Amino acid sequence: MPAANAPRKFRIRAPCSSANIGPGFDVLGMSLSLYLTLDVSVYQEDATQAFEMTYSGEGATEVPLLPEQNLITKIALYVLSANGISQLPQPLKIHVHNPIPLGRGLGSSGAAVVAGVLLGDALGNLKNSYDRLLDYCLMIERHPDNVAATLLGGFVASYLRELDPEATKGVPESETFLDDVVSKTYPQPPVGIGHYLRLNWSKEIKAVAIVPNFEVATAKARAVLPTTYSRQDVIYNFQRLAVLTTALGKSPPDADLIYNAVQDRIHQPYRKTLIPGLPEILSSITPAKFDGLLGIFLSGAGPTILALATGNFDAIAGAAQKVFKEHGIESWYKVLEVTDGGSTVEEL
Amino acid sequence: MPAANAPRKFRIRAPCSSANIGPGFDVLGMSLSLYLTLDVSVYQEDATQAFEMTYSGEGATEVPLLPEQNLITKIALYVLSANGISQLPQPLKIHVHNPIPLGRGLGSSGAAVVAGVLLGDALGNLKNSYDRLLDYCLMIERHPDNVAATLLGGFVASYLRELDPEATKGVPESETFLDDVVSKTYPQPPVGIGHYLRLNWSKEIKAVAIVPNFEVATAKARAVLPTTYSRQDVIYNFQRLAVLTTALGKSPPDADLIYNAVQDRIHQPYRKTLIPGLPEILSSITPAKFDGLLGIFLSGAGPTILALATGNFDAIAGAAQKVFKEHGIESWYKVLEVTDGGSTVEEL
Repeated sequence: MPAANAPRKFRIRAPCSSANIGPGFDVLGMSLSLYLTLDVSVYQEDATQAFEMTYSGEGATEVPLLPEQNLITKIALYVLSANGISQLPQPLKIHVHNPIPLGRGLGSSGAAVVAGVLLGDALGNLKNSYDRLLDYCLMIERHPDNVAATLLGGFVASYLRELDPEATKGVPESETFLDDVVSKTYPQPPVGIGHYLRLNWSKEIKAVAIVPNFEVATAKARAVLPTTYSRQDVIYNFQRLAVLTTALGKSPPDADLIYNAVQDRIHQPYRKTLIPGLPEILSSITPAKFDGLLGIFLSGAGPTILALATGNFDAIAGAAQKVFKEHGIESWYKVLEVTDGGSTVEEL
Repeated sequence: MPAANAPRKFRIRAPCSSANIGPGFDVLGMSLSLYLTLDVSVYQEDATQAFEMTYSGEGATEVPLLPEQNLITKIALYVLSANGISQLPQPLKIHVHNPIPLGRGLGSSGAAVVAGVLLGDALGNLKNSYDRLLDYCLMIERHPDNVAATLLGGFVASYLRELDPEATKGVPESETFLDDVVSKTYPQPPVGIGHYLRLNWSKEIKAVAIVPNFEVATAKARAVLPTTYSRQDVIYNFQRLAVLTTALGKSPPDADLIYNAVQDRIHQPYRKTLIPGLPEILSSITPAKFDGLLGIFLSGAGPTILALATGNFDAIAGAAQKVFKEHGIESWYKVLEVTDGGSTVEEL
């Protein structure tokens, strides 16, 4: 039993995520077993410092650690402000451990958003439901695919609801939403911004993430997309998307069905200019050559490649790494699980 | 036990179908409990006539009944020809009973295609698998949504595979495929033209078909569609489609989730000019006003309106009929089940 004036300690874990998943541009997401972790201590009385934030892992040299500059604490401040609390409790110590590479299409920013919302909720003892926490997340990251997967866990389909314009009147754009968070007073977000549904996932399917050593900015990856699409290409994706959402939950997985269903004409063909080697990787790594492979596609906006497979993980990853290498690009890979659960706050 | 020279008698049943289902343009289909029925007798020896075809129900005054003109027998002749049999067995008696209204978006032509393929298979004792029968169907009707639902039954997602161009070399266009079927020799269709997947369907959901008294030709309904779509509209449909395929299999059904997920920006907005009253019907008949309503949309290319609901069927249908009436259009309605099974051949 802790002493009466022992600090309150809790741990927040937020899994990384992959979005798009072949034809599911801006709609499908899945949480993967690589966790952003926050170890938080709230002291009852004077500690050495009023606020201390430390950070290890990916981004350690570039992520700012001041409460009004760090994305996670800024978001916590927003959640607290929307609930009438104008500052972080003090003294407060936060250690962030982040194994999720930044700007690689594995939802590092989505994980930070969810971790920040959970931090604000936990610090304010607000006890919001996960549905309500999603509303907060969607005020900051306006695409639901990554944040819904990270928050809720598993294989998730999601979309934004069409909101009454009255409900969002005066809400700043997502780019400026957190500016001057320390001095702003925020209203509560509208209720039910996002719709989501957990889809079935067959446990024998693992996700091999092949991560090349360069970043692709999401804004740049969106800028290369056309503004209109032919009816033929639209229907091509519709047909695959409708099959894919159910096919990945069938056991045993049908490799032929899934491989055909992950094909896409909406985003991947346009992003090949940003990711050297992408066309060769997608066309040369097939179930016919790699037993156990089910599908291979860009993770999010890339440059990470995600291969879904039931085996042969090292050979599949090696083949993708070889193509990257031929283009002068180093890479690493990791075999990940699609997590059952989502993000958690655990009191220690 | 029939006498040694008794005729072989069998019955073919093919359910009608609805396609599109809100956002699922050209991909989703479901079989509904209204059956095209063929009662077939093949005689061992001389009957009064070598060939006799009779017909009751929808289309009785317009459907041709000569074997080289009737769609069902033309298709049977194609299937037989592809298997080295140049003509229908004789004497042959076929009675067709068709309760499916023609040109109303309930898959009457898809049902005729499936019935014709099953007729050819049964007359030739070919015993093709359902997968292989689908290949035959797709040589005639090149959109898989209706034929896959009618043949296989239930709630089905389907798409055409990308075939090796070699495999389809010399195959006539679907419009001319059956021309001169009596004198043509056909090759077997390529194997595996279509991919399909049965999706879960929650049994408490019924389909109310409201059928106005005018026809919309599918070709005309396609002609009003644009050739390109904005990225925004494409994603709008992606997001709903991904949720809908799973949401309709959840029990109890979530009305709010499903109602939002059946919204569409790809085909319905463009078809309102062809179907007077459509915008009012879609906007005024909501779950808030009709308890039990889950979603309402065009069936196929219309003009039939399909409402998915767990109750309140007569009130929902009545409200749609009232709007049609205000536009001077008479209509009728029927409460249908989504059938578990597909088309069948039963030896009598």
